[in-house]
Amino acid sequence: MPKQHLPPPQVLGGTLDQPQGAAEKGSLASLLQPCQPQSQRSATIRRGFQVAARRGHHGALAGGPYILPRFSPASAFGSSTDSLVSRFCQEKTDLKNYTLPNASWCPDMLNLYHEFLEKTKADGWIRLPSFKSNRNHIQGLKLPLALTVTSDKSDCRIFTRCIKMEGQGYEYGIFFHPSKKSVCLFQPGPSLEGPPRFAHGGSLAAMIDETFSETAYLAGEGLFTLNLSIRFKNLIRVGSLAVLNVDVEKIEDQKLYISCVAQSADRQTVYAKASGTFLQLQLEEDSSQY
Amino acid sequence: MPKQHLPPPQVLGGTLDQPQGAAEKGSLASLLQPCQPQSQRSATIRRGFQVAARRGHHGALAGGPYILPRFSPASAFGSSTDSLVSRFCQEKTDLKNYTLPNASWCPDMLNLYHEFLEKTKADGWIRLPSFKSNRNHIQGLKLPLALTVTSDKSDCRIFTRCIKMEGQGYEYGIFFHPSKKSVCLFQPGPSLEGPPRFAHGGSLAAMIDETFSETAYLAGEGLFTLNLSIRFKNLIRVGSLAVLNVDVEKIEDQKLYISCVAQSADRQTVYAKASGTFLQLQLEEDSSQY
Repeated sequence: MPKQHLPPPQVLGGTLDQPQGAAEKGSLASLLQPCQPQSQRSATIRRGFQVAARRGHHGALAGGPYILPRFSPASAFGSSTDSLVSRFCQEKTDLKNYTLPNASWCPDMLNLYHEFLEKTKADGWIRLPSFKSNRNHIQGLKLPLALTVTSDKSDCRIFTRCIKMEGQGYEYGIFFHPSKKSVCLFQPGPSLEGPPRFAHGGSLAAMIDETFSETAYLAGEGLFTLNLSIRFKNLIRVGSLAVLNVDVEKIEDQKLYISCVAQSADRQTVYAKASGTFLQLQLEEDSSQY
Repeated sequence: MPKQHLPPPQVLGGTLDQPQGAAEKGSLASLLQPCQPQSQRSATIRRGFQVAARRGHHGALAGGPYILPRFSPASAFGSSTDSLVSRFCQEKTDLKNYTLPNASWCPDMLNLYHEFLEKTKADGWIRLPSFKSNRNHIQGLKLPLALTVTSDKSDCRIFTRCIKMEGQGYEYGIFFHPSKKSVCLFQPGPSLEGPPRFAHGGSLAAMIDETFSETAYLAGEGLFTLNLSIRFKNLIRVGSLAVLNVDVEKIEDQKLYISCVAQSADRQTVYAKASGTFLQLQLEEDSSQY
């Protein structure tokens, strides 16, 4: 097992030190100044990354051959949604696209899937592909966590595609709209149980986090989950459909504020309400593989 | 697929309508009065369950053969921690106990596991068993969601034990102390990825939710997750150890307020800070099987 390093922030389903509360010594938060006014924090975050990059093998970020991104506030807003979407939605015929329906999908899920598929033809909705690993989605982009590639032979999978058997774990498809909203059709399988016959609250939390992450990235290069808050309302029965309606509420000071209402197909039952904050950061072009 | 019902609140990794904000029509929240002072809410919740139980097949909770619990404020506090623990920690020699170490555990995890195992001998710590389903943990207890048992032949698993292969998914062990705190040793495997080589934020969220749920139940019959909030700090490398230190901060007005700090084994890196609220509710004896 590799030596434990203090890692950089997480991308697509990931995390970052938040400039809130007392900064722990040795964390990225120690580079941020929580007492600063909100308007000054972005510059501090930017400086934080620059400092972190300069530190290299020393100080709080010692030990990692990290390639931290050049952060340009102009270009962080410069990428068009179109270019982000076209990069994210590349055809990869050699990879299984888990967004496509399978025999385990319940009628509600199939019906809504086809409804949104129709909307991709006229209403601007985009069906997002879903591969087994984020490695496939970020090919050609340099991440803040561009560590040296190890000879890792294990079967790495994105958490929300962790179970291979159709219908047993996560079944979902995400549709994104350039007006900065998305819909996730989520059907939890029997391996996602909490109480008997109902989905674990944590499985819904992870589904919300993943939908937030993809939405944040496409809507405005939101990369790092700063926080996630969920108010649970009702249970989701295993094998049934939950529809996650996700909206980017605002983009301000290099942060995206995102909300979610998860409800039944007929909208009569609210399963949960959630909010999350993501930090914008630009990915650079890179030809290296993960 | 069974007809979609409005389900009752979730137990052990579960959810419940929260008396906050406008109550949605047709949800349990509609039985609670958000405008009430905090001190009056417990009585309202209690009445809510009584109303729900009386409603049976009618109204907001129509369609379900639910056996909602008799809620007694006295007995909700009456079960001793000892009795809750002894029920939860029954020896089940016919079931695999996933808390036991396996070859995939990293040295940090093994060392801390054995350290806490020593503490079970003298310091009052209790190693919690972990079976593949909550069905095994709640045998003999009547849940609020005691639905008619269906002939479900699928392989139901608790979400945090969803991956069978050792080291590939969730590896964890939880130790509980009757002073109302617990420690979860959590090692995410390569199927729990978010960004390449790091755990998905949602996998940590689910691990926190599960640890909160078990702690809330043992510390004071906390059954229903009302909310969960996580501030992410740093990434957890796949295959390494995160130590979740969980404390019940207070028990008030039939609610448990729980906090968590997730950090590296050497305590130098904080991965996340979290808080959650759980509602107390007493389970009744029942001889039926799930």
